[in-house]
Amino acid sequence: MTDPAPRRRGRPPRAGAAQGPGTRDRILEAAREEFSERGYAKVSVRGIAKSAGVDPALVHHYFGTKEQVFEAAITDAFAPALTGADALAAGPPEAVGERLTRFILGIWENPATRAPLLAIVRSAVSYETAAAVFRRLVAAQLLGRIVRQLDLPDAELRAELAAAQLVGIAMLRYVIKVEPLASVTAEEIIARVAPVVQGHLTGFGDGAPGTKP
Amino acid sequence: MTDPAPRRRGRPPRAGAAQGPGTRDRILEAAREEFSERGYAKVSVRGIAKSAGVDPALVHHYFGTKEQVFEAAITDAFAPALTGADALAAGPPEAVGERLTRFILGIWENPATRAPLLAIVRSAVSYETAAAVFRRLVAAQLLGRIVRQLDLPDAELRAELAAAQLVGIAMLRYVIKVEPLASVTAEEIIARVAPVVQGHLTGFGDGAPGTKP
Repeated sequence: MTDPAPRRRGRPPRAGAAQGPGTRDRILEAAREEFSERGYAKVSVRGIAKSAGVDPALVHHYFGTKEQVFEAAITDAFAPALTGADALAAGPPEAVGERLTRFILGIWENPATRAPLLAIVRSAVSYETAAAVFRRLVAAQLLGRIVRQLDLPDAELRAELAAAQLVGIAMLRYVIKVEPLASVTAEEIIARVAPVVQGHLTGFGDGAPGTKP
Repeated sequence: MTDPAPRRRGRPPRAGAAQGPGTRDRILEAAREEFSERGYAKVSVRGIAKSAGVDPALVHHYFGTKEQVFEAAITDAFAPALTGADALAAGPPEAVGERLTRFILGIWENPATRAPLLAIVRSAVSYETAAAVFRRLVAAQLLGRIVRQLDLPDAELRAELAAAQLVGIAMLRYVIKVEPLASVTAEEIIARVAPVVQGHLTGFGDGAPGTKP
């Protein structure tokens, strides 16, 4: 997930050693920290470069504009999620709700993956540029993989309503931290929420919500 | 909801013309705009005063600290929501899910109430101080009114899971704007989401999610 090599924060940017394997990852990690700590608007390519110990030109070289660095940082943070999404879609369809719920809660429960996710959510909520990146990557790629497995005409809307339940849980449990939702076990939440996610995706059963005549 | 009488804490500043009926409201409106446009961290009491055309001492006089101005601005923005929440709880319990869903979507669909709500969400997501205010006001007051009507031992958690579905819809439809969720009619969403909100609150029926043995 992250580059194990130590970051050379504060290293003179001229040094040619700043290039080579690991540099790209180091810039990405610095970008993620900058976006996380300072928020999208206050981050600059120069600041990312300084934090990564490289010349700003190198950031431009690898990624381009600030928006592009942000997109790369999100993509990187979501790489395991996207890999996982393939596995999610691959299992039995009658349990996709539980798999998706476990998977999303798993990302949020793990402090290592929660931090970049929080950074993304905060940026996406406050800046249209960041929201656009979020839409392209998360909505299109993560949900897209699930949608393709659902052989239903309204699969996209179904996937988004299911995602909305999980996004709301994440907001109230991990970001706003309302009680008791912030303190109950993940299993308690999975037991109550997975059937709702499943219901949105494949229907709630006869006469129940989510079914179409 | 809010105290109509000005608080007498501190001495009124010299600018006599700035005082009088409407001054408090003008400060509140300026505060809401400042928090909305600049985000919690970048707003200052001085900036709010300038935007409202009053002396900073008058802001302190009416509200106190920045956090207190923020809380007052949220309280003010949520006043109709809290009034509505009483009506929500008063109707037949088997339709509380639809009433709550209609009510929350109604607030978000109306541009006049959407703007302050967006400001609150953005601040609450990014700043712990703002999140604490959000917890106190929205979670405790809005959900509290619904919880008191549910004669169930786990009513708080139920209300939060229902709220999570609606918070997620708001995030994806109005903030991040994912498609098709951002473009379908409110009625389409209500038809699919109200039964889920109802299910969280009062149970999904025999053997379905949300019921307790």
